[in-house]
Amino acid sequence: MAVYPFERKPNEPDANGILIMSDSFTLSFRPDINLITESERVILRSPQHSLTLENPRSGLRTALEKLKYSSQTFSQLQAVIAELDGIEDSLNFEFELHKLISLGWISHSVLPLATAIAIAENYEFVVPAFDEEQPLMLSRFAFLRQEKQQFVLESPLSQAKVILLDWRATALIGKLAEVDSPFSFLTFADGLIDAEIARSFVQLLVATKMIQLAPESKALAEWQFHNLLFHRQTRLQRLDEPPKSKIPQFEDSERSHFVKSPMSDLVISLDKPKLEALAKTDISLTQAIESRQSIREYGDQPITLHQLGEFLYRCARVKEVYTFEEDLMNVGEVTKRPYPCGGALYELEIYPVINRCQGLDSGVYHYQPLAHRLHQLTELNPDVEALLYNAWKATGQQDIPQVLLIVTARFGRLFWKYHGIGYGLILKHIGVLYQTFYLVATAMKLAPTAIGAGNSEQFGKIAHLNEHEESSVGEFMLGSLKQ
Amino acid sequence: MAVYPFERKPNEPDANGILIMSDSFTLSFRPDINLITESERVILRSPQHSLTLENPRSGLRTALEKLKYSSQTFSQLQAVIAELDGIEDSLNFEFELHKLISLGWISHSVLPLATAIAIAENYEFVVPAFDEEQPLMLSRFAFLRQEKQQFVLESPLSQAKVILLDWRATALIGKLAEVDSPFSFLTFADGLIDAEIARSFVQLLVATKMIQLAPESKALAEWQFHNLLFHRQTRLQRLDEPPKSKIPQFEDSERSHFVKSPMSDLVISLDKPKLEALAKTDISLTQAIESRQSIREYGDQPITLHQLGEFLYRCARVKEVYTFEEDLMNVGEVTKRPYPCGGALYELEIYPVINRCQGLDSGVYHYQPLAHRLHQLTELNPDVEALLYNAWKATGQQDIPQVLLIVTARFGRLFWKYHGIGYGLILKHIGVLYQTFYLVATAMKLAPTAIGAGNSEQFGKIAHLNEHEESSVGEFMLGSLKQ
Repeated sequence: MAVYPFERKPNEPDANGILIMSDSFTLSFRPDINLITESERVILRSPQHSLTLENPRSGLRTALEKLKYSSQTFSQLQAVIAELDGIEDSLNFEFELHKLISLGWISHSVLPLATAIAIAENYEFVVPAFDEEQPLMLSRFAFLRQEKQQFVLESPLSQAKVILLDWRATALIGKLAEVDSPFSFLTFADGLIDAEIARSFVQLLVATKMIQLAPESKALAEWQFHNLLFHRQTRLQRLDEPPKSKIPQFEDSERSHFVKSPMSDLVISLDKPKLEALAKTDISLTQAIESRQSIREYGDQPITLHQLGEFLYRCARVKEVYTFEEDLMNVGEVTKRPYPCGGALYELEIYPVINRCQGLDSGVYHYQPLAHRLHQLTELNPDVEALLYNAWKATGQQDIPQVLLIVTARFGRLFWKYHGIGYGLILKHIGVLYQTFYLVATAMKLAPTAIGAGNSEQFGKIAHLNEHEESSVGEFMLGSLKQ
Repeated sequence: MAVYPFERKPNEPDANGILIMSDSFTLSFRPDINLITESERVILRSPQHSLTLENPRSGLRTALEKLKYSSQTFSQLQAVIAELDGIEDSLNFEFELHKLISLGWISHSVLPLATAIAIAENYEFVVPAFDEEQPLMLSRFAFLRQEKQQFVLESPLSQAKVILLDWRATALIGKLAEVDSPFSFLTFADGLIDAEIARSFVQLLVATKMIQLAPESKALAEWQFHNLLFHRQTRLQRLDEPPKSKIPQFEDSERSHFVKSPMSDLVISLDKPKLEALAKTDISLTQAIESRQSIREYGDQPITLHQLGEFLYRCARVKEVYTFEEDLMNVGEVTKRPYPCGGALYELEIYPVINRCQGLDSGVYHYQPLAHRLHQLTELNPDVEALLYNAWKATGQQDIPQVLLIVTARFGRLFWKYHGIGYGLILKHIGVLYQTFYLVATAMKLAPTAIGAGNSEQFGKIAHLNEHEESSVGEFMLGSLKQ
């Protein structure tokens, strides 16, 4: 039945040793591609695009139907076209198929083990020539996870995700993670599956970059797994994420109100600066930006409660409570504050940890930005001292901070709307707040320093936070200037 | 040989149905725990802590050696102590062992399949009671990866990592990812491994939260996998990351110089504002912060090249090139710029995409912050128009931006020093730069808006970037104010 009208047969590598149309794989449309057959045309439709073929010949029509409703090798599909439409059309079919592959519409399967589905456009599925006896190792960027009751192999280096259809596929991948001897398909497949199927499966993993043949570039070698995964998930469009059809709704305004309820009865009122006067007497923006610097040494006389109040008021108070004119997402009341925030959702909370502050007892406080008050959570204790110690250690070990501002995020304020990019957005907001802190501290002649890293578990214990609801994401040190 | 001196035997659940000391597992010290035996004392040492036992009795000493050099069940260890030191000591041993477990020093194994190693302090390894016939499903947060030639199961919900010692362990996990019928250990283990071992393995996965028995909380359900993984990896201390012993060295200053080489010969000189005059005439910091807002509608007369030059100069120019007094990390020349950056490494690059700007042709430019110049990369073309279109689409679809500032990161500037926290730091820097953009635009009476998300692949193609070396991480729109 199979007809090979090419000089180069499907399973033969081209001049570069590259195998493109290999009968190692069966081909089918990605599950979300619709095929609409009408008498004079065929329409193919993905969530992103649509493609109309006017008056397709019967062989092509049949081949497209086979791609939709079954999984066939390239040779099988080509044979159908050669038989019904003739040799010339079957030659053109490779070209047409390439266009569909490039759109990411064609899945490659090694049955009964696995199917590779494109997650990116400009998709390439190419099996490079490789020495089958070299040790083959699963890439350190490839990872296996259960999602929606499927076991899926993904990698931030891959344009595809590989759905594992059978536990034996998982077992084979397990074997690829621990390589101690030269590779052989016979021992690899032994007892589990036919060696030829095992070979095709390995080719599938190579084509999708789950197995990396070449050593990592210097640039790639510097990436840790979680960093590259995060970059991939937040900065690249995925084909398997359907376009949003519904406007997201904020259904949990009760749990995630625009300000937190008072966290204790120990209330400290804060002074408010006179903004109108300040707007005239304050240093200029240019002066603030040009003279800003990180300062990690403090004066003998610590920062005062009055200064802390002014600082928080200028950086982070609630200026206004309002609702959107058209509240399509059901957000309810939102706020204006001195620093910008995506969607006006303001998920960040500030907890001043006081080591030395004139007029204020040492301990941990929560800043209530609507009432412009502090609520004391705890006094100084060894856990709190550990926080101060860690901040000191993370910033060059000069002076112990007089005030450590711990910034948390209430994830529920953002994630319903920003889903995948939510955590990245929080980190950008942290940066926005840091620069606001820096500039206001500069204008107030205080000593500011942002800290690069912190321990969320440590603070979560002190403030009794449920880490999936609220957790610390930033730290900032503040104190009086050394005279 | 086994002696059970307790009222509650090891494999019996306590009053809460919880199984703590189960003989389903064998126990051993984490590989990096050192055991030093001297005549009158025994010293246990982890990379973080040290614990000295003065004059331990011979049974305890033997049990510790067995933990170091073999893997034994709790009953086996207890029997040793009962025999050599007596029943009372063997009773106390459970208490001592709990302390070691809590420190994260004890690994739990189900041989020959897997070992669970603590990655967090205050470690708990508890097998809750569960109905063994309920469907058991691998958590969507659990993931399997090859690292250093081991296949490791991790999860941002777990305090442990599970090293898979045998491909059959992988196969069993594959079965846990696709559950279609009530669970039975017999069919689960069938043919691969003894059913009792399979049961112990499932208990290990439940104890380490790789299998989640309870439904996800509302807060947890909102987390996507990559977000929670990133949070876990950047904000919590891991026990298996040894304390840094060496000062990191910047070995690639050639590849990652403090400014990029000119990206084209098409050079546009930019005007410089007179900063000293500006420092006096500029609006105050308070005015800038209090009047800042996102504006997405522009004037008919677009922004001018003169304004763009002033804006970039005030936000992002190189103010100074210097070297650290003590350059312990071999960083070489670093720079000062108007906005702060961790380690003075300044990994961010700015690419103005010009749609409409008086005095400047449309197209994509790179800002060279040392010479304060633009280098044109390309003219306006459909790919560039797609960038502008996406920015417009991401920000409420008001006016098409006059200028789109694409901000990239050169990862090699940071990753050698900041490793795991590097990408998070970049996002914080993006936020710092955004607030600087906002405030300077406010002072200059321009219309600024930060954008929440963008497509790195699209821009990488236009600017010919190797995505692992440099990739876009932020976008900002700028234009003239509507009159």
